[in-house]
Amino acid sequence: MPLMSRPGLVSFALGLPASELFPTAALARAMAEVLEQDPRALQYEASLIALKTHIVQLMARRGVTCTTDQVFVSAGAQQGMNMLVRVLLDAGRNVLVEDRTYTGLLQVLQPFGARPVPVATDAATGIDPDAVEHALTRGVRPAFIYTMSDGHNPLGVSTPPATRARMVEIARRHRVPIVEDDAYGLLHYGEGEAKPPMRSLDDQWVYYVGSFSKVLAPGLRVGWVVVPPDLTTHLSIVKESTDINTATLAQRAIVRTLDSDLLATHLPRLRAAYRERRDTMVRAIAQHFPSETRVSRPPCGMFVWAELPERLDTTRLFVDAVETERVAFVPGAAFAVEGARPALHCMRLNFSNVAPDRIETGIERLGNAIRRALAG
Amino acid sequence: MPLMSRPGLVSFALGLPASELFPTAALARAMAEVLEQDPRALQYEASLIALKTHIVQLMARRGVTCTTDQVFVSAGAQQGMNMLVRVLLDAGRNVLVEDRTYTGLLQVLQPFGARPVPVATDAATGIDPDAVEHALTRGVRPAFIYTMSDGHNPLGVSTPPATRARMVEIARRHRVPIVEDDAYGLLHYGEGEAKPPMRSLDDQWVYYVGSFSKVLAPGLRVGWVVVPPDLTTHLSIVKESTDINTATLAQRAIVRTLDSDLLATHLPRLRAAYRERRDTMVRAIAQHFPSETRVSRPPCGMFVWAELPERLDTTRLFVDAVETERVAFVPGAAFAVEGARPALHCMRLNFSNVAPDRIETGIERLGNAIRRALAG
Repeated sequence: MPLMSRPGLVSFALGLPASELFPTAALARAMAEVLEQDPRALQYEASLIALKTHIVQLMARRGVTCTTDQVFVSAGAQQGMNMLVRVLLDAGRNVLVEDRTYTGLLQVLQPFGARPVPVATDAATGIDPDAVEHALTRGVRPAFIYTMSDGHNPLGVSTPPATRARMVEIARRHRVPIVEDDAYGLLHYGEGEAKPPMRSLDDQWVYYVGSFSKVLAPGLRVGWVVVPPDLTTHLSIVKESTDINTATLAQRAIVRTLDSDLLATHLPRLRAAYRERRDTMVRAIAQHFPSETRVSRPPCGMFVWAELPERLDTTRLFVDAVETERVAFVPGAAFAVEGARPALHCMRLNFSNVAPDRIETGIERLGNAIRRALAG
Repeated sequence: MPLMSRPGLVSFALGLPASELFPTAALARAMAEVLEQDPRALQYEASLIALKTHIVQLMARRGVTCTTDQVFVSAGAQQGMNMLVRVLLDAGRNVLVEDRTYTGLLQVLQPFGARPVPVATDAATGIDPDAVEHALTRGVRPAFIYTMSDGHNPLGVSTPPATRARMVEIARRHRVPIVEDDAYGLLHYGEGEAKPPMRSLDDQWVYYVGSFSKVLAPGLRVGWVVVPPDLTTHLSIVKESTDINTATLAQRAIVRTLDSDLLATHLPRLRAAYRERRDTMVRAIAQHFPSETRVSRPPCGMFVWAELPERLDTTRLFVDAVETERVAFVPGAAFAVEGARPALHCMRLNFSNVAPDRIETGIERLGNAIRRALAG
């Protein structure tokens, strides 16, 4: 998109963490030490137990009890999901998804010929368990239900605890697994930690996907899934034929930074910086967007979802916003699953990768473009 | 396999490069510099043009002319193959393979429901083009033909130039692409470089798979494929849904080591060390194995293939070899494709990951086990 490389563009479009907040020095030190001390650091090797042990501890922090034989290490959360889909699609060809969902999951399903079946979700309350129950009762037999409990992409919502409990109960009763994508659960901006994910309530029917991309750095390409032990075995076989193993140097560097308890200082710093960006964005939207705008104030993650007056088409707005105001976002239509409610009047705004003063500027510009579109 | 962790075991089984020969210091320096100087080193990012440019130069060294838009960067050769298979299997469900072939390719085919159709190959002369021609003429319509021109795994053979030319001519005439797996072509033990791969003869019908795992280190997880530009585009889309991108830090570290022309000193050193190991193994086999043994002296790669007297079952030999003699190898049966000639009397011996004196010891022990088996 050559539009997007315009000088001075403020981009709320991509879902990137902020490079300037990566713990680069700590990772560089860890890599140097590993390369100096560990002759196996660059060799082929299965996933490290030491890393799985750290993941078990990280999961405990999220309120999840698990064991190392339930942890499978992947080259990032995207690969974890891709491999889970590959393994689970034996069980069926439909997948229940929220009617605004992560486009990367839809991209995973597409080459497998799997059909996403949308159920209602909401930017304030998350996935609608009644809609899930209804779909399952009327005979949809999905291979799994895909959802994000915290820091939903694109909605920003975290589902209430009662919904989580209800979802788990439905999954158990209908014997349909939930794939819970928790890429953002550790980026929590309230007091303490985010609510425990659904995996904390059930270790048989909830498959959990996690990632170091948002809390350390995506360039490491390391994530994980937590599943029953027979599934980790299956995933390991698929993994070998897919890309042999996850980079051992990256695994070792992560182990070393976690050994030194980096997250104890790094996570609070990261959360404080992202919280400021979120607050700046929500405040600026209140000031510059039309008063009818319905906007989320996400407790987790990297995205604000804005629902504008229904007569606004954000896909058309996009061109004017970029060309005239030099500000970008992702139009809501990009996240709407086929056959679902349209999201033409919505937009996803990333706040993690834009400095606060640029957020102010960008939202003001976007407000101008929106006002023009509504007037014209 | 608990058998394999016996103390004192000499293992010729796995196909590992030697860790002690990795250019660890150079890679450590490169990583440190990249992390200090490049703020994008840990961010999500598409494959680097700078790396593709180096790959184009490396390919020129192999006698191949290509452009950066024909290069796709993958997380190692295994992922390159996996993604090629995924893209090519739209065209058909059979794949022509040599009747002794890389088991990793068979593992890639299996979950796609693709059927490997074996054609004859030979440890001295490589793939038999008459067999390929015959299969295609009698109506097999494979999605592609999979072969290794240099340092064949498990046979060690490099196919003669005339066979390469004939294969390319057959592929063109029958309009069936060849997937040429060249993981070992840069590990050449003769004068100069290995013969140019089939990709040097045709840029439309030969898809080339390469890797940094054997010439730098597998722990980087970086490889590449060379294909027509429309295929690189297709692969890039599949890649994003598979694992977003190949680790940018590893890509940048490789660029930096290649910028400083590391391979000019590293490759000769690597080749000299592996050549010594190969020669030691071939010499020891001549001394300790039965005189009827037919053995390859591979000009490239990491494996010697030994064909023992037909009455010997190497799968049964394996247990005695490990338990009594503390030496391991991979029985030939592991590489035989279903429906192909059996390889029960054969074995694959890895020489790259065993020091020369241990090779002497191991082959002598293995000779003892073989003699006992033939006598018993």
